Amino acid sequence: MKIYVTGYYTTRFGEIWEQSLSELIDEAITGVLKNAGIDKKQIDAIFFSNMLAGVLGNNLHTPSKIAEIMGVNIPIFRSEAACASGGIAFHLANNYLQAGAAKTVLVVGAEKMTDYSPEETTGALMTAASGEEQAAGLTFPGLYAIIANYYLQKYGYTEENLAYVGVKNHFHGSLNDKAHFRNIITVNQVLKSACIAAPLKVLDSSPISDGAAALVLTSDKKMIGKMKNKVTILSTKTASDAISLSKRKNLDTLLAVKIAAEQAFREAKLARRDINVAELHDCFSIAEILAMEDLGFWKKGEGGARIKELSTQFGSGSPLIVNTSGGLKAAGHPVGATGVKQIGELFLQLCGQAEKRQVKNCRYGLAHNVGGSGGTAVVTILGI
Amino acid sequence: MKIYVTGYYTTRFGEIWEQSLSELIDEAITGVLKNAGIDKKQIDAIFFSNMLAGVLGNNLHTPSKIAEIMGVNIPIFRSEAACASGGIAFHLANNYLQAGAAKTVLVVGAEKMTDYSPEETTGALMTAASGEEQAAGLTFPGLYAIIANYYLQKYGYTEENLAYVGVKNHFHGSLNDKAHFRNIITVNQVLKSACIAAPLKVLDSSPISDGAAALVLTSDKKMIGKMKNKVTILSTKTASDAISLSKRKNLDTLLAVKIAAEQAFREAKLARRDINVAELHDCFSIAEILAMEDLGFWKKGEGGARIKELSTQFGSGSPLIVNTSGGLKAAGHPVGATGVKQIGELFLQLCGQAEKRQVKNCRYGLAHNVGGSGGTAVVTILGI
Repeated sequence: MKIYVTGYYTTRFGEIWEQSLSELIDEAITGVLKNAGIDKKQIDAIFFSNMLAGVLGNNLHTPSKIAEIMGVNIPIFRSEAACASGGIAFHLANNYLQAGAAKTVLVVGAEKMTDYSPEETTGALMTAASGEEQAAGLTFPGLYAIIANYYLQKYGYTEENLAYVGVKNHFHGSLNDKAHFRNIITVNQVLKSACIAAPLKVLDSSPISDGAAALVLTSDKKMIGKMKNKVTILSTKTASDAISLSKRKNLDTLLAVKIAAEQAFREAKLARRDINVAELHDCFSIAEILAMEDLGFWKKGEGGARIKELSTQFGSGSPLIVNTSGGLKAAGHPVGATGVKQIGELFLQLCGQAEKRQVKNCRYGLAHNVGGSGGTAVVTILGI
Repeated sequence: MKIYVTGYYTTRFGEIWEQSLSELIDEAITGVLKNAGIDKKQIDAIFFSNMLAGVLGNNLHTPSKIAEIMGVNIPIFRSEAACASGGIAFHLANNYLQAGAAKTVLVVGAEKMTDYSPEETTGALMTAASGEEQAAGLTFPGLYAIIANYYLQKYGYTEENLAYVGVKNHFHGSLNDKAHFRNIITVNQVLKSACIAAPLKVLDSSPISDGAAALVLTSDKKMIGKMKNKVTILSTKTASDAISLSKRKNLDTLLAVKIAAEQAFREAKLARRDINVAELHDCFSIAEILAMEDLGFWKKGEGGARIKELSTQFGSGSPLIVNTSGGLKAAGHPVGATGVKQIGELFLQLCGQAEKRQVKNCRYGLAHNVGGSGGTAVVTILGI
């Protein structure tokens, strides 16, 4: 059965102190219904993605909060898989439609992170790492720094190679009026920014953001016929791996990403070169470089050199443009919303709605959403 | 497509201080694979249910912890819908199989609740209520006491009517060697037990428990052919309602239960009288009485009188026996495991494996799992 994405809305990402989690969810749901031109009565179920509201905001059981906000009694599901919660919610929604359990559903992701002290938020995020990593005092910058150091040493690169990820993604953020950061930055600025966990600097790292995003998915042929904007879900696959870095086979490959990508490309019957736009999980600069390799766009070890060419930057004219939204780095990273926004950005690109950052002749898009340091990965491929 | 439950295992429920959450999960997974006689390589995906590990134990992103425990890289999903998390995980697993995304999956539920102070656990549980209810200082006993007072006054009953639920379910718990409480109690003991939130006493209330439970679900005809014990999933439906009691239309009806039950009976093509065994969500005595009415087994308002007949007690010879496991009251209520154990108990009954509490001539079973004060409900019907 063909499932389509037929609507998308995202709130601004950033420090949104004037809106609560419920208000962000309300804005995203109201916005996406308007964007798709449908009524809430046409929604059969909702897949909701959120990581931290229980730990930080005393908010579990959000499905029934959403029922209250919307005034509905439909099935509502919350998924949590750390920073991959959004991709997982989308994956489950797609399969729910494939099962015929619903015809039209919403996928909604939301997170409120900036109302708390940095210690509270950092501590809450570390619940997605293993007990031994928590006990060792590691943070997520620390975990990705271990990966980055290993990668740079193994393949003979320096922190300068990493810096290009932030430069590219901030340039894209400057073209996205919903992005957390809209300023252009230089390689020098990245290298001179405060060190968080060597070799990773502030400008190698995605921010703590608030925000919500929502999508409409449908298998309803009547509805699809009426929609101006629609893209098909060609595949969505997920895989898992040990939560602790010390239990993995490799430090410079995220095995879960490799497995999900191979399955997704096989199901979509596409080659890597077919993908025109990709939204990758650049929680830290090293993560985008590993993703390009693990997804099969670049060979293992060449990413450090390839990123310096900036061939994946908007306007380069090359066949694959990466993170036109600004990625997690510049668009922001309200954890539960991120995976939903990634697919929303592909929807905009494939429908020709991406305005100043519109990539020409887009046919296929790929989203890559990662939980923790690679314990969960979701790879989704869309097409027109 | 026909989906079967082909294996079940539950740890003991209770104060299990000698096992961590991971160890409980490990025991449940090892146990269910052995029970079904299959290898972990035959498992395509896992649906995991847990409510509180993030809030109480710094444990989010449990899917990748399970990947580490089992040494697998398969899709793993965590569901959270307060005390309905287990029913929701089962519902999503069934639809994942219906979609053809997997052939054989595990549904695993686990919760660790007794390692914390009563204030910590009670506070964590209240994250499943609305902000206004939290701010008012309400607890779940308090919320269900509001419902109980309304019900008793409206239909002219007293707290004595409520007491029979605990009496019946403790009798069933005495027949289940995995139950948290195995002692028989009397109506007088219930009435004389400490008052928690009037009219609800300690012996009207389910306990805080640790425990884990797991099921095997499969659509694989080869595997089904080899299985001695198997039951079919005839329907699993879920509905939602406003999280706040003050936003509901009725106080003596859980609308989400009514909706899910009507859909489930319609899909299963069964009448109420066809059900032989039911596992109902008796988090408090009043909840089982409301459930019997909202599910359509008893007329609205007659539950207070009907429960005194003890017709739903094992050995009564009547056609519907309720909560043979002991229910949440006596079997215990490790939140994430509860909805999984309910379906497991039906599996045992329908397969003739329920030993001392085996109901004769079981053909159809129903499980009723509720989140919060009724914001989420899942109704599942199984048959042989």
